[in-house]
Order: sequence, then structure tokens, then C-alpha cells
Amino acid sequence: MSGNSFGTLYCVTSFGESHGAAYGGVVDGCPPGMALSAADIQQELDRRKPGSSRHVTQRRETDTVDILSGTYEGRTTGTPIGFLIRNEDQRSKDYAAIAEKFRPGHADYTYRQKYGIRDPRGGGRASARETVIRVAAGAIAKKWLRERYGVQIRGYLAELGPLKIKFRAWQDVQENPFFAPDNSRLEELEKFMDALRESGDSCGARVNVVAEKVPVGWGEPVYGRLDADIAGAMMSINAVKGVEIGAGFAAIGQKGSEHGDEMTPQGFLSNNNGGVLGGISTGQDVTVSIALKPTSSIRLPRRTIDARGKPTTVETTGRHDPCVGIRATPIAEGMLACVLMDHALRYRAQCGDVVPPVQLKPGVG
Amino acid sequence: MSGNSFGTLYCVTSFGESHGAAYGGVVDGCPPGMALSAADIQQELDRRKPGSSRHVTQRRETDTVDILSGTYEGRTTGTPIGFLIRNEDQRSKDYAAIAEKFRPGHADYTYRQKYGIRDPRGGGRASARETVIRVAAGAIAKKWLRERYGVQIRGYLAELGPLKIKFRAWQDVQENPFFAPDNSRLEELEKFMDALRESGDSCGARVNVVAEKVPVGWGEPVYGRLDADIAGAMMSINAVKGVEIGAGFAAIGQKGSEHGDEMTPQGFLSNNNGGVLGGISTGQDVTVSIALKPTSSIRLPRRTIDARGKPTTVETTGRHDPCVGIRATPIAEGMLACVLMDHALRYRAQCGDVVPPVQLKPGVG
Amino acid sequence: MSGNSFGTLYCVTSFGESHGAAYGGVVDGCPPGMALSAADIQQELDRRKPGSSRHVTQRRETDTVDILSGTYEGRTTGTPIGFLIRNEDQRSKDYAAIAEKFRPGHADYTYRQKYGIRDPRGGGRASARETVIRVAAGAIAKKWLRERYGVQIRGYLAELGPLKIKFRAWQDVQENPFFAPDNSRLEELEKFMDALRESGDSCGARVNVVAEKVPVGWGEPVYGRLDADIAGAMMSINAVKGVEIGAGFAAIGQKGSEHGDEMTPQGFLSNNNGGVLGGISTGQDVTVSIALKPTSSIRLPRRTIDARGKPTTVETTGRHDPCVGIRATPIAEGMLACVLMDHALRYRAQCGDVVPPVQLKPGVG
Amino acid sequence: MSGNSFGTLYCVTSFGESHGAAYGGVVDGCPPGMALSAADIQQELDRRKPGSSRHVTQRRETDTVDILSGTYEGRTTGTPIGFLIRNEDQRSKDYAAIAEKFRPGHADYTYRQKYGIRDPRGGGRASARETVIRVAAGAIAKKWLRERYGVQIRGYLAELGPLKIKFRAWQDVQENPFFAPDNSRLEELEKFMDALRESGDSCGARVNVVAEKVPVGWGEPVYGRLDADIAGAMMSINAVKGVEIGAGFAAIGQKGSEHGDEMTPQGFLSNNNGGVLGGISTGQDVTVSIALKPTSSIRLPRRTIDARGKPTTVETTGRHDPCVGIRATPIAEGMLACVLMDHALRYRAQCGDVVPPVQLKPGVG
Repeated sequence: MSGNSFGTLYCVTSFGESHGAAYGGVVDGCPPGMALSAADIQQELDRRKPGSSRHVTQRRETDTVDILSGTYEGRTTGTPIGFLIRNEDQRSKDYAAIAEKFRPGHADYTYRQKYGIRDPRGGGRASARETVIRVAAGAIAKKWLRERYGVQIRGYLAELGPLKIKFRAWQDVQENPFFAPDNSRLEELEKFMDALRESGDSCGARVNVVAEKVPVGWGEPVYGRLDADIAGAMMSINAVKGVEIGAGFAAIGQKGSEHGDEMTPQGFLSNNNGGVLGGISTGQDVTVSIALKPTSSIRLPRRTIDARGKPTTVETTGRHDPCVGIRATPIAEGMLACVLMDHALRYRAQCGDVVPPVQLKPGVG
Repeated sequence: MSGNSFGTLYCVTSFGESHGAAYGGVVDGCPPGMALSAADIQQELDRRKPGSSRHVTQRRETDTVDILSGTYEGRTTGTPIGFLIRNEDQRSKDYAAIAEKFRPGHADYTYRQKYGIRDPRGGGRASARETVIRVAAGAIAKKWLRERYGVQIRGYLAELGPLKIKFRAWQDVQENPFFAPDNSRLEELEKFMDALRESGDSCGARVNVVAEKVPVGWGEPVYGRLDADIAGAMMSINAVKGVEIGAGFAAIGQKGSEHGDEMTPQGFLSNNNGGVLGGISTGQDVTVSIALKPTSSIRLPRRTIDARGKPTTVETTGRHDPCVGIRATPIAEGMLACVLMDHALRYRAQCGDVVPPVQLKPGVG
Repeated sequence: MSGNSFGTLYCVTSFGESHGAAYGGVVDGCPPGMALSAADIQQELDRRKPGSSRHVTQRRETDTVDILSGTYEGRTTGTPIGFLIRNEDQRSKDYAAIAEKFRPGHADYTYRQKYGIRDPRGGGRASARETVIRVAAGAIAKKWLRERYGVQIRGYLAELGPLKIKFRAWQDVQENPFFAPDNSRLEELEKFMDALRESGDSCGARVNVVAEKVPVGWGEPVYGRLDADIAGAMMSINAVKGVEIGAGFAAIGQKGSEHGDEMTPQGFLSNNNGGVLGGISTGQDVTVSIALKPTSSIRLPRRTIDARGKPTTVETTGRHDPCVGIRATPIAEGMLACVLMDHALRYRAQCGDVVPPVQLKPGVG
Repeated sequence: MSGNSFGTLYCVTSFGESHGAAYGGVVDGCPPGMALSAADIQQELDRRKPGSSRHVTQRRETDTVDILSGTYEGRTTGTPIGFLIRNEDQRSKDYAAIAEKFRPGHADYTYRQKYGIRDPRGGGRASARETVIRVAAGAIAKKWLRERYGVQIRGYLAELGPLKIKFRAWQDVQENPFFAPDNSRLEELEKFMDALRESGDSCGARVNVVAEKVPVGWGEPVYGRLDADIAGAMMSINAVKGVEIGAGFAAIGQKGSEHGDEMTPQGFLSNNNGGVLGGISTGQDVTVSIALKPTSSIRLPRRTIDARGKPTTVETTGRHDPCVGIRATPIAEGMLACVLMDHALRYRAQCGDVVPPVQLKPGVG
């Protein structure tokens, strides 16, 4: 399988460039009989859409999805679901100045060196706009997981540059353009973003994602572990530089007597492991946290070289997110949904006849 | 591909349980003509071997590898390399007491619920002893990468529980049983481990791995990114709860003007990206950092349930590493080697005719 | 990888239904830098196009291909090539009568039973119209194989129902709508087809495909053999019921002294093996022959059951090819091209450093 | 996935050479809880074993299988099943004379050219002895398919060189060393083989395999079709040059009104399609027929070249099967079992919630 597909049974294939005609995706392996319309996908795409507030890129894209195959009379048929999201706002002139320069922090240099050629318009294939496909594929997975198993997948912005945002309520996440879990912090966040934008610089972010009601038993040790597949999927999102499951890096400083989640007939007493033990889901919440680097496209001048290797400087004046992490929440949710769905299917392939011997509530999520 | 194989072209398959007859591995896709003997693998296995100091498990295993296929007159033939590592010290009695209890932090519960059945002897398939296969497969990859491209892959212990160990010299790493990069810290580390062992508890660790001289161009966006595959491979190692590439979680607090690695004709001026941009290697050092949780098997009594769901307590009195992170360095190196080798082969499949247009030194590693 | 993708490195993904909005394909893994325009694909699609003579279906489709991604300024960039072929002539009313009946020889019954639901319009996903994707993906592979290695892939109609057509000249194949390799037989073929069409019945066919100038060394024993992958690819074409490589079934009656192709410094003296020995190409022509069953959609009444299991009869009055084999030549060529390209890439991944030790001409093709 | 593994969910990996220490296999993805002992595999291996009659190779191998992992207390645990079959009779001196010559019909030349190096002892990796792994993996699949779904997989020798053997009874197949389905033909077959052996030549064969009680719905259109995967698996068996499903090549001469299997409430009235329509099983018998070429190793002198390209002759005096097809029956059964099992698992992954809407007996097998 080449690099633009992922998943063993719930298999997602992606194509498209930032300033090409369209992004397209193919979801293969979706079970038949599920009600599915473009609206089901659209509502997730709208959460990721550019231009939704002044804190994100002002590129004008409706991100309208067209389903081209795989459904009949509003239901999935089990055949591959092909879909397109056309690019509408392609101001390639914005990019002419940088076509022959390698922007620091961008994939300009690596694409050029790897392939000998690259599409410089808007970052080409390396543009984070590709994540529309992940969100769309994730929307289908989310729907199936919810309807079939009651699984609920939600994320939020946990850190915005230096600002840590403690979780207060899921309700809040839906009510602000940051996906921040505490509306009382909004003024602070907006102020920070306004200053950042004005400075011409960018910042990083942390996004947390949680999957609730995941049944016990999903994940295939030893290389196809649930957490391994999650880590791979998350790190494949543009700008992600770190992934944690459960306690994550905090586990370094924990004692075994503290980290190991004790069990009682009422379930686990804690969830340091993030819902995965030995690569298999425990029935608790699957908790994931990711680090996103600051946007590489900034207005401040940066030293670089041009396509002939000569020194130069570059300022990126296009329309960019000052913090790519802000729109990352629905993307991370989508990737988690795809991985969980893949493992849901893999689970019932191999273990479809197994009745889990112990009846146990998950306990602490 | 099922869960016990990984890699697209350099494909590693693993089998075996802690107290079964043997662990076995198959490495498929290795280029032909490379000199390879059991000794090449053995030297890496010896670095991971139990019983090498009082700070690790005292299980007595020589971890002797037998190559069963894939070489002729001391050279690889391009056919699959099958190898075995027999289990020698299988004191299953140690485990009888816990066969019907789910040890907190272990995979006992998840294996039982997933499969309806599990091999309780020494953790069965969930035992970290499986990592011998990763080290062996990694040894072959390391050798090829070194001989073909000059790639060098090395790791070290960066944190031991609460103790941070600053990097001093690669030479030091080879001279102490902790893989610690600073011999002046040994007394402190030993004291800490002695106290930990005495307390019956365990601790976590951080291991850093670096691959030097990786050519530019390895990695397949957008899902088969080099960093995505590294993250998946690392998270698949037993006890790993977090993975970082380059700046990792520190990128959250960085500004774009700080994080984005500037370029000059002499190469990159910094390496926040950890040698990967847009999923493709930059030619700089590939830098990875992982968090390992504290060993779950501890002597302290812990609350749990038995196989019928009844509450009980468990103490693990077998021979265990008080810190699994100590022996993790060669394992993490092995996994990084396998992923890099896979992408080296994938690179030349697709881009074998490309001459990287810009001649540039990597700059800061 | 799910069922609608194939290939390890030259990976083709397909979606679409006969009367949906469009068929779409994604070709991932194509090397960068190759000149590629829609016209390169179109010329192959035009060879397969319906309505090109009175002997094939009269459905009106221009089969116009749009490339949506993966090229820049007329060259492949190494990123996935997404393309669409819109359906234009969708007379779904033709199919209303048969929506609730299972046509003998068709996949109506199996799709319904497998998925619980099916798109009945024009056969839905089971329609042979899906082969546009194979032809398009094959066109790209053909071009690369030709430019990079000089490989030439051509096929012809070897049998039309009871009529065997001996090979005379490749030139002839291009000059008639049957892909028949002997223009002197055209009148006979046309007469046969006219009578067949009038009778309301259909017939089978044999198509032969030959790849010339395939280098020695392509194919991965033991399961990824070149001939195994060819056989799988050919049998995946609609209506194919048999595949032969080289001597094929005639090998049963051969002696070893007759079948085994002798070698001299001038190359092989015969090609019973069809250009593949031990799963690896020999440098001779790769020769493949396939059997296509008669079209299942015929005007004659046939016994069947309806969706509730009740007995009924069905006549298929839509626009159908009386012999699907006639248009199968470009499809079989396309599939052979895709498999060869996949193995070309796999070869240089593993054996890119090997210089074949013996300099030998291929000899008899 | 590299060339020595096959199967998406029931994944078989193979290693070993004819005169190496051992052949080994890994079966990954087997459902847990099935009773499995070495004896279950051994009984199938014994059917393929050399030396069982004077008509096959006299190499002395007990082909004893050792299961090294994946079972606990006699049941599969869901973890990979690793097994070994040690080579016992390795008279490498037999092969010294031919180490530097390329035997016609053999893979000597292609391995040497592909890999630059080859293990010449007994054909190395290209030896048909590798098929022990297929038989062993097939034995596990057969057992699961039989116990879970009642599927029965059986094969027989349908042609031996020029002799066609009409099917009389399954009982007969078990009672003679040819797997011939008609004991009344034994004398004739023995006479033919005796004469063939004496002549120093070899002959081809046809083997038919039938899977009964396969449920409707297995197979993944459009590329992962059940018949496509069967064709690929069969063509990957050493010496196979052709594969047919159902009517196979006879379909060329059939009319649509003859070929298309009619349906009634009692099921299908014929089985020209061989139990597969549109790539999905129909519920009828899956019928497969394969052509095996004559053994390449013959005593008669043959023209060839040596490793430096110089002309020479070769006679193969080792212990060889004069007709490899004779022992091919259990191998073909094994491969069919593996493919069916893979699709059984894939079916329930995607369609585990589907109740086939029509209740229908399969009808004619």
C-alpha cells in the first residue's frame, strides 16, 4: 500500500493539492446499510472550515463535499465511497514570490529534493488543506461507531502557545471558534491571538481527543496495537510533533504503584494507560494528546535558500492560520475515528465468536 | 497484513511467547549480497539481554539467535531471513499465583477479554521479551543502512524516573548498563535503582534515539510519512506512552520564528523538526524521544479482580525489570532502523531516477 | 488494504457505479517527472469505449477523463494521481424491470446476499464499466514502462466463441473493432456477431496479451510471484474465468524435455514458460491468455427468482455487449501494465544495487 | 507486504530453503479458541510427504512439524502460530554438478540474475519443498472452516500427462498415491509412470479442487474478488501455468444461454461459474482447476549455459518427482483453504451485521 492510503479494513485513500481542481477521497470497507448523506460529512467539514473566525486563515472555501459513489437511496452499499471537495479560492499569485524559495519549516525543500519537482501553489500536496479528507473519512467512521457501538469521539484545544486551558465542559467546546473547553478563557485567547497575528508570528498548540464507550478488545498486538496505529495516524497530521496516550510523558515520573491502574468489580480506578493495555482497548476512554508546531508560514522575514542553493530571505504574506492547532481538533477526532473503526472491523473478523468472559464496567474513563 | 508484521518492503514478522519454545522472526525484503552472520545480530541482542546488571531482570537467557534461512555462504540472498531465539529459563511456577488474576497495568485483562483465552505464563505474548525480534530485525537493518548509506543509529537513556540525564558523550553510553550518556551520573543512578528495587516499586524512563546521515527524501506523504511510521513503530514497543519527533511537545510553546529551521547554503541552522519536514527526511539527524511507563510488575500489593470478576489483590514476585526503560535503548534503535530501512527501499522504488536538484549539506543535526 | 485497491507500490484504487455520478481512480506511487496529460489516458480509454462499432454496447459514453491531481505543468509530481470519468448516458429506466430479479450469470444475487442491499441501476458496482479505471491506470503504467524500460504491452482477440483467430500481424489488431490479429477474418467475425446479436444470445472469447522487453528479475517469490500477481489481476477482470501463462493448460500434455526452455548464449530457445520462471521474469516476452465468459445479459428469457425468492423469468433488454471479450483487450493490457509496473518498482527497491551477472539476450520471445 | 507473505487477515508468512536448516511458517490472524495440535497439521503434511510411493521423489523427509507458538493448552490463543519443519535429508553433493549451470525450466537463471546470488543446493528457495508451509497453513484454515462453517475442501488428480481421469468417487482419491478419483485406472497410471521414469523424462498434470458448503457472500469486489485471490494463490504454487474457475476456458465456446446459471427456489440449476459471481461466493461449490507443468529436473541431457554464459549441457540426476502434479493435490487444497479463510474473516469484518435477505439452497454444487 502506498503512502496515500491508510487502514487495513477501513481504508482511506486521499488525493489532491492545495491549488489543484479538487481534493478527493475514497473510503473502502464501510459496512453496508448505514444511512449516509453529504450532510453527515458536511457538518464535520464545517467545523474545520477556513474563514470561520478572524483567528484562522481567511481563504474562502465552502469545503462542499460531493459523494460520488458507494451509497444508494441514502444508504451505504458496502462499495467504496468516493467523494470530492472542490477548491474554489485559488489565488496562486499569492505564491508566485515563494515558488523558487524553500520556506523554513515547510516541506518545500524536502518535496523538491525527493521528487525533483514540486507543485509550489499553496504548498501543493503538503498543504494542510489535505486534512479535509481526514475529516470527511472520519465523519463516516464516527457515525458508524456511534450508531453501532455508541462510541463518542470528541476533542478540544488544551494549550494555545503558552496558555494552558483546563477542561471545564464539552458544551463550551462547541461554542467558541477555538474548540476551547472553557468559555471563561475566551477573552484571553482572543487577545493572545490578536497580538500574535499583529506580530506576524505564529504559535503551537496542544489538542486532546477522547473516545468514550470504546468496547474492550480492539487492537492487534504486537505491531498492530491500537495505540501504535493511533500514534501513527496522529503523527501523520500536518504539524504534529508529539503524541501521548494516557499519562504520556508524565509516566516517566510516575511510580509503578501510581501508574498501574487498579481494578475492582466496578471497573478500573484510574486511567493512566489511556484506555489501552498491551495494545488492546480496556473499555475505558481512549485518551490521546498531540502537540502541533507553530505555523511555518509567517510574515516575519526568515533566512533561507532558493532553488539554486543561493541564500535569500522569505516572508510569507498569504492567508495563513497563525496557529494551525486551532483547526486541528476535528482533524484529530477524524483520525482517531478512522483508526478505531479499522480496529472495530478487525476485531470482529478475528474475534467475532468471542464472548468477553468477564462482565466488567469500564470504571474511570 | 495482520498485527504481527510491520513494514511495507522491509517486512518484519514476529511470533513467540515468553514461556513458549522460542521466539521467531522473519525479515522479508532485505537486499541481497550483504554479509550477514548470527554474530551481527547477536551483538545487538547482547545489549538488550536480561541479567546484564543487578538493575534489570535476573531471568537467565543467553538470547542466542539462530539464522535458519535467507543467507548463503555468509551473504543475504534476497529470500526471507528466518531466525529463532529459544527460551531457556522458563520458571512457570513463578507465575502460577497470578494466572487467574489480572495484574494492574498489564495486558492480562485485555488479552483475556479480547481472545477469551490467554497464555498466562510470563505474560505470554504480551511479554516485553518479544522485543528480541525487534532488536534482531533492527540489527540487520542497521547493518544495511550503515554499509549502504553510512546511516548511524544510536540511543541513550535521557531520564530515569525523576532524574534527567544530560547528554555528555556517546562513548559513555557504551560503558554503563543504563545506556546513560554521562558516566559521572552513574553512582546517582545506581543508588536510585537500588532504593527503587528495595522499595518493591518501579519507575518510568525516557529514551532518545538519533539517526545520523539519513539522506534527504525518505518518507511518503501523506499517511506514510516517515515521522508517522516512526511514531507507530515506537508506540508499538511495550510500555511506550509517548513519542516526540524533534522539538516534540516543546513546539507548543515555541513561536514560528523560533521553531521553523532556517536554511543557508551551509545547511539548516537548527533542527526543531527532528530531521523530518512534511513527512520526508531533510538530511539532518532524525531525532526521536519516547516515554516508557513504569514496570507494571511490582512487589507492592495492588487491588485487582480475578478471572471471575471478584476483588482480590496481587503482588508480582517474579524476576522483573524495576525500570523497563533501561533495556529499551537497543529496542528503540532497532525499531527506528527498521522504519528507516523500509523507507530507504520505498524511496528508491519510486524516486530511484531522481537526482536531488539542490546540493546542500545537512547543517545542524 | 480493502478490496478496491491493488498493487503494493503502484497502487490503484477504484470507485464508482454504472449509473452513479462518475467513476474515479487514484494511482499512487507513480514516479515523478514523467510527462502526463489527459490525452495520454484518453487514447487508451477510447480503445475500450462503448459504441465504437455495432458489435458492442450502444450506450453513449465519451469516457472523458479528467486528471484532478498529481501533475504539475504536465509532469507527474510523485503525489497521487486522482482522475474522474463522468457517467453521461444513464438510462436507469432500462433497468427498472430487473431491479427486483436476480439475472442469471450476474452478480445481482451475490451482492444482495453479501451486503443486504445493492444498487440495481446498470449492475451498480458489478458493471464492467468499472474497467475504465483499469484502462486509465494501465495507460499511465504503460507509458512509464515504455519510456523507462522500452516495455511494450499489446493484446488481441484470439478466439471469438467457436472461432479461433490465428495471429497474423499487430498492425491488423489496430485496424478492426475486434482487436483481431488477422484482417482477412473480419467478414467472418462480423457475420458471426450479426447472427449472434440477432439470436439474442451471447458468446465467450479468449484474449492474449504480450509484454515485450520486460527486463529479467521482476517478481517476488514465493507468494508475490510475477505470474501469481498477473493471474490475480486478470481473474479480477469482469467475466474472466481462466488465466494461462506461457504454455498454460497445454503444459499438462507436454513432456519435461519439451516444455523446459533450453538456453544458449543467444538466449532461450523457446518460451513455454511465458517469460516467467520461479515467479521471476526471464527477459523473454511475458505471455498471458485469458478466457472470458459469454455476456450474462441476453434477450432470451431465463429462469430465475425475485428478491423474495419466488420463481420468475428475466430477459435483459438494455444495451449490452453480445461478447464482452471484444472490448477486453485494452483492459487486459492495462492490468498487465499495472502488475508489471508494480514489480518494476519493487525490483529496484530490493535489488536496485544488483547488476545481473550474466549478459544474455532474451532469445525467443 | 513483501513477497513471502499472503493474505489480508489470515496472513501466512513463509521462509526456508531446500537444504537449509528448516522451513518455517507463521500464521497470523487465526481466531482464538480452536483446538489445534501438531497432529492436525501433520496429517495434511503426510499427504504431501515425499517417498510415499515409487512415483514421487525418494528424498527422505518425515516432514515433522513443530508448533512453536500461538497455542496454549491445546487451543489457539489468537496470537501468531509459528511452526518449523526441519530438513533432514540434505544430500547437497547431488547438486554440486549443477551449481554453476542454469537448468532449463528452473528458476536458477532468474534467481541469479535478480539477486546476483543464489543458494544452489536443491533449488534453494525455489524448491517445491516450500509448499510444506502452504499445506501446514492450509491445514489450520481447513480445520477452522470445517468446524465453523462446515466447509469441506478436497482435490484430485484430473489429468496425468495425456491421461484424463474422470471423477468416480472421493473415496478412491484417498486410497491411491496419485490422488486419482478412480481406482479402476490405477494400473494404467502406474504403468504410465513407470515408463516415464524409465525414460528419464517428466510430464504435466491437472488438479481439480472443490470447496463445498462455502456460504454465500465471501469475496471483495472489484480487485479483492474471491476468484482473483484464488487465481493468484494457485498460480503462486510451483509449476502452475494455468488456473480455471468453474467452466474456465470452456466458457469461451459457451453461449450466454448455456453458461449463465439459472436459479429457482431450489437454488442454482448449474454451476458454470464455479461458485463465484461478481467475485463473491454464491453458496455453491467453489470449483478450481489448475495446470502443472512437467518437472524441469529430468535425466535427459539439455542444452543450457553456465554462470559465465558459456554453452553447456545439464542432466539432473537427483531425486525428483517425475510429475510434480501428483503431490500437488494437498497443496492446492491448502491454498484454497487459506484464501477462503481470509475471505471468511474479511466477510464478517465488513458484513458481520448483514442477514442475507434471501433464504435459498445452493442448488447444483
